[in-house]
Amino acid sequence: MNSYHTLKEEAWLANMEIPKHHLAIYTWGNVSACDRQAGVFAIKPSGVPYDQLKPEHIVVVDFEGQIVEGTLRPSSDTPTHMVLYRNFEHVGGITHTHSPYAVAWAQAGRSIPVFGTTHADHSHLAVPCTEMLDKQAVQGDYEEETGTLIVKTFSTISYEDQQMVLVAGHGPFTWGKDAMKSTYNAVVLEEIAKMAFITTQLNPGVQSLPDYLTEKHYMRKHGPNAYYGQR
Amino acid sequence: MNSYHTLKEEAWLANMEIPKHHLAIYTWGNVSACDRQAGVFAIKPSGVPYDQLKPEHIVVVDFEGQIVEGTLRPSSDTPTHMVLYRNFEHVGGITHTHSPYAVAWAQAGRSIPVFGTTHADHSHLAVPCTEMLDKQAVQGDYEEETGTLIVKTFSTISYEDQQMVLVAGHGPFTWGKDAMKSTYNAVVLEEIAKMAFITTQLNPGVQSLPDYLTEKHYMRKHGPNAYYGQR
Amino acid sequence: MNSYHTLKEEAWLANMEIPKHHLAIYTWGNVSACDRQAGVFAIKPSGVPYDQLKPEHIVVVDFEGQIVEGTLRPSSDTPTHMVLYRNFEHVGGITHTHSPYAVAWAQAGRSIPVFGTTHADHSHLAVPCTEMLDKQAVQGDYEEETGTLIVKTFSTISYEDQQMVLVAGHGPFTWGKDAMKSTYNAVVLEEIAKMAFITTQLNPGVQSLPDYLTEKHYMRKHGPNAYYGQR
Amino acid sequence: MNSYHTLKEEAWLANMEIPKHHLAIYTWGNVSACDRQAGVFAIKPSGVPYDQLKPEHIVVVDFEGQIVEGTLRPSSDTPTHMVLYRNFEHVGGITHTHSPYAVAWAQAGRSIPVFGTTHADHSHLAVPCTEMLDKQAVQGDYEEETGTLIVKTFSTISYEDQQMVLVAGHGPFTWGKDAMKSTYNAVVLEEIAKMAFITTQLNPGVQSLPDYLTEKHYMRKHGPNAYYGQR
Repeated sequence: MNSYHTLKEEAWLANMEIPKHHLAIYTWGNVSACDRQAGVFAIKPSGVPYDQLKPEHIVVVDFEGQIVEGTLRPSSDTPTHMVLYRNFEHVGGITHTHSPYAVAWAQAGRSIPVFGTTHADHSHLAVPCTEMLDKQAVQGDYEEETGTLIVKTFSTISYEDQQMVLVAGHGPFTWGKDAMKSTYNAVVLEEIAKMAFITTQLNPGVQSLPDYLTEKHYMRKHGPNAYYGQR
Repeated sequence: MNSYHTLKEEAWLANMEIPKHHLAIYTWGNVSACDRQAGVFAIKPSGVPYDQLKPEHIVVVDFEGQIVEGTLRPSSDTPTHMVLYRNFEHVGGITHTHSPYAVAWAQAGRSIPVFGTTHADHSHLAVPCTEMLDKQAVQGDYEEETGTLIVKTFSTISYEDQQMVLVAGHGPFTWGKDAMKSTYNAVVLEEIAKMAFITTQLNPGVQSLPDYLTEKHYMRKHGPNAYYGQR
Repeated sequence: MNSYHTLKEEAWLANMEIPKHHLAIYTWGNVSACDRQAGVFAIKPSGVPYDQLKPEHIVVVDFEGQIVEGTLRPSSDTPTHMVLYRNFEHVGGITHTHSPYAVAWAQAGRSIPVFGTTHADHSHLAVPCTEMLDKQAVQGDYEEETGTLIVKTFSTISYEDQQMVLVAGHGPFTWGKDAMKSTYNAVVLEEIAKMAFITTQLNPGVQSLPDYLTEKHYMRKHGPNAYYGQR
Repeated sequence: MNSYHTLKEEAWLANMEIPKHHLAIYTWGNVSACDRQAGVFAIKPSGVPYDQLKPEHIVVVDFEGQIVEGTLRPSSDTPTHMVLYRNFEHVGGITHTHSPYAVAWAQAGRSIPVFGTTHADHSHLAVPCTEMLDKQAVQGDYEEETGTLIVKTFSTISYEDQQMVLVAGHGPFTWGKDAMKSTYNAVVLEEIAKMAFITTQLNPGVQSLPDYLTEKHYMRKHGPNAYYGQR
């Protein structure tokens, strides 16, 4: 019997976006899909290469991190996903990758400013880079503390207005209303990170877009008067 | 009945060049094809991914922006195309992408100088970067104002000698005698933008080509004495 | 009769990872697989393109560099592999590539610091860059001296804690418990080298990760309490 | 009747290496193959895209630039090839591309120093960048003058020791004993140019390899005592 067939399919399909869009190699990265009514999320098993990953490998975990269904160990990053689901209540999917440009900004400890409309189409805010986790947090429950650090970073930022974060010295986490939206955001983040890198090399003193332009582009795609896409 | 079958096919085929040449991901970018005798142009619908795009999805619009044929919403950038068709009277196709190197130059607010013959083969002029749209324009009819800004930028530049532009903080628009030529120009622009980026990193004080060499290369491919290609 | 069928298959399969992961073009690079009980290793023949390489082309060599099986010349880098197998007694496979980012760090004469957890997942140490080989060594038995230089570089570094090295002015060598692990390390090194390059351009003053974070990540995947992957 | 069937096949096959190795897009670039006994060379026709190019499109030209066989116009760069064949008497094939890293060095007006053994495996000399063609030369027989400029650049360099050149503000030309070797050199040049670019960004003060190491690597593959590859 397989109680979470659909959820596991959704998680599997979203995980397969990672190799498709070259966001990570080998076993790196992981995506989860959440079923809030059931109080569980489905996540990639730890250390399984994408070219061997099948829907039945996906592990279902509850919000305490207990395995509900599945025979494999879940991703070692599972507690980070758990904390985000607990705190960001409208999030239905989370993606973590090691895509190179986003990782480089995270390693450089720099937030990605809104340099252009490609970024503003997706968020009117910089992609924040967290502080570096302190020693106590790392030596405690490290992956859970990573989630807590992200939540703290968003204490003054709406997690719905900005669905991307860079964990300092580590790499990107993205989320969305469902798993596919979170991987979409991971692909967009890598593209934005690449563009922003080249931009800073071409113009080290480059400024962020003026607010009026950032807001305009963001509102084309979001909010009550959005007019991008089909009705 | 389908009055604009050929025009929509042309627009569709040119739009498919965008993913083929990796000029944009997902739904980003758009190409239009113009039929001046009919007073209409055919353009990509808003928010439709390229791998789902079919010729029958293409929307036909007149020069006032009114939909003439099609059930989907046209690209949100349609008014920009409209203004360009109105003002650049020999243009038969327009392409807008978010290709990363061209976007980076636009975000850096820098025109691309003629650093080499690859550029000069296509234009003897720098690829101009517009000014940043002001607040009033952005809060007015934004996409139409983007077109007006491009036209203003070309008040002292021939739109036939230079068929590429960078909209500051946004990205590239290119045009040509037909839709395919406009996507060709978009691919060339990205290649030129990449080469020019590496060039500036290798030699920050690099100068433009001497005029006599720029003119020579441009005239090999353009004008009455062109001798590139087949008769 | 073919005494080393399995070993040659293993070496061949690992060599084919080089073109698959774009680590080198044409005939460049080479992988060997070691059978310590038999006292031999199997290595790519010199100058054979990957798209023509077959398992029966692989050459089996002993630890004195004598050909034991095979009709082709072994890789010109064979003596480097030989010295590493002699000195690093738990190594079962070695990979040498000319992957561009790793080569660039080697040409720049710079070790790659631990800038992030992608690196720390694989080693808690910088990827060391050797000194430049001196004139006497180069004019002596050059390839053997390259191996000796690597061994000397690891006189104060555990070859099990750090399985990657950059030979100054040349490029990367990686190793592991078997041939496939050594090519895995070669792919990881190129990814880390790319990320580290972008990182230094974004933040020239960037510091290495704090030790407590490096150790944590390394220990997630290595040592008695590792919890990454499946049991 | 088709007198130059084999030569045209050889030229066609070598031209198809350009799109295969991503050395140029659309119609850019051209390769020729020379038959010295017949006193002719076979070259790509001007302006024909690679995906439409067939062996029967190849044009055969003599050393005065006269068409001997073929119905299409030869490449506009034909006179450059002609001058090189006239002056470099052991050259059997020539390749011209617009590969981005090599073009960027040419646009930057910089020769590529021997930064590592990847370069030294192919030449013990820097890849020279010519001077900029002067006005008189450009306004004269431009393509022939480009060949003359290359020959002048090699007045103190052996064209057999160094088979690659960067024409300032333009891009790379490479040659070799046959057409395939010249495209091989074009691929190698692009790889070296990329590595050298990253190297200069990582270490702006980087020095060339010491001569003893450059010579050693070059002599592994070239000269009477070469020991790379199969006998």
